[in-house]
Amino acid sequence: MNKWKIKSQKTIFIQRFFKVKTQEILLPNGKKRKYSIVERRPISVIFPASDKLELYLISQFRHLFNKKILEAVAGHIDTKETPLGAARRELKEETGITASSWREILEFETSASVIKSNIHMFLAKGIELGVSNPEEGEEIELVKMSIEEAIKKIMDGEIRTASTIIGVFLLDKLNKEGKL
Amino acid sequence: MNKWKIKSQKTIFIQRFFKVKTQEILLPNGKKRKYSIVERRPISVIFPASDKLELYLISQFRHLFNKKILEAVAGHIDTKETPLGAARRELKEETGITASSWREILEFETSASVIKSNIHMFLAKGIELGVSNPEEGEEIELVKMSIEEAIKKIMDGEIRTASTIIGVFLLDKLNKEGKL
Repeated sequence: MNKWKIKSQKTIFIQRFFKVKTQEILLPNGKKRKYSIVERRPISVIFPASDKLELYLISQFRHLFNKKILEAVAGHIDTKETPLGAARRELKEETGITASSWREILEFETSASVIKSNIHMFLAKGIELGVSNPEEGEEIELVKMSIEEAIKKIMDGEIRTASTIIGVFLLDKLNKEGKL
Repeated sequence: MNKWKIKSQKTIFIQRFFKVKTQEILLPNGKKRKYSIVERRPISVIFPASDKLELYLISQFRHLFNKKILEAVAGHIDTKETPLGAARRELKEETGITASSWREILEFETSASVIKSNIHMFLAKGIELGVSNPEEGEEIELVKMSIEEAIKKIMDGEIRTASTIIGVFLLDKLNKEGKL
């Protein structure tokens, strides 16, 4: 396998959640190429589930789409946090929920070519509802549903963001195998 | 629902596949906030399937991870292309495969908060193998497997990018329902 060589690179934009880099690449065939990438802070995604295996999703306004969307709880992992630490913090802040049992069910990347964004996905059980403490500008509504209902909402296009889709499909699989 | 208002915005970086914008936002509570977003060109993802419903995935070197990864065929949709047009073109270029039957099986977003990246996912049947014509720097190997094998590779962490995971789970569901 012939790897690309980075001849030089420059961070041209840096922000709380991501940075943009431009690179001068030497291709295996000896030619040069410019390449730009976005590196995003890793994210924890959390699916709290009741004893009956109902999932708590959230409905919140998303500026990127200028409307409310239904999705799993998620948040960026701070520099000094573990993925699990971020998962516990985000779940408490966004929904007020605490959980006694945590399990990482998948780790993946949202993209393969231009945007680096690593996701840690957790199932939280033994949950207790509490008082949330959302960030400024966040208005979050808890929405409880069965895994079957969530699958139906994916097929209807009501749930339409990648991490939530992956989590629901995976939980459905694990549930059918008796592994939840 | 209280929407965010964009008071001003500026495109600070523009490139072939994405642009970066910084925005001055007026929150519903009257406070101001800066927000930066990445807008990526939409992408078509293609799952060619044999008559026995074996999937053709590809193995290729990905600079972002500095190694070969196993994933679905995918590519950015050009400005004057339809999602289906891009799907046909990318499938032919990257694998040499042409198909007589095309079906869009899902449309979704890779992210909800900072990165806008829209995905159109296709199933291609009635396929014929042919000669590929990859872009410079691309070395692509076709890998055929059953849906069950692909599911196993997700659980093993060998398939680990979001669009491919979503497609495999969805095709497994449709197959089990007799809808492929």
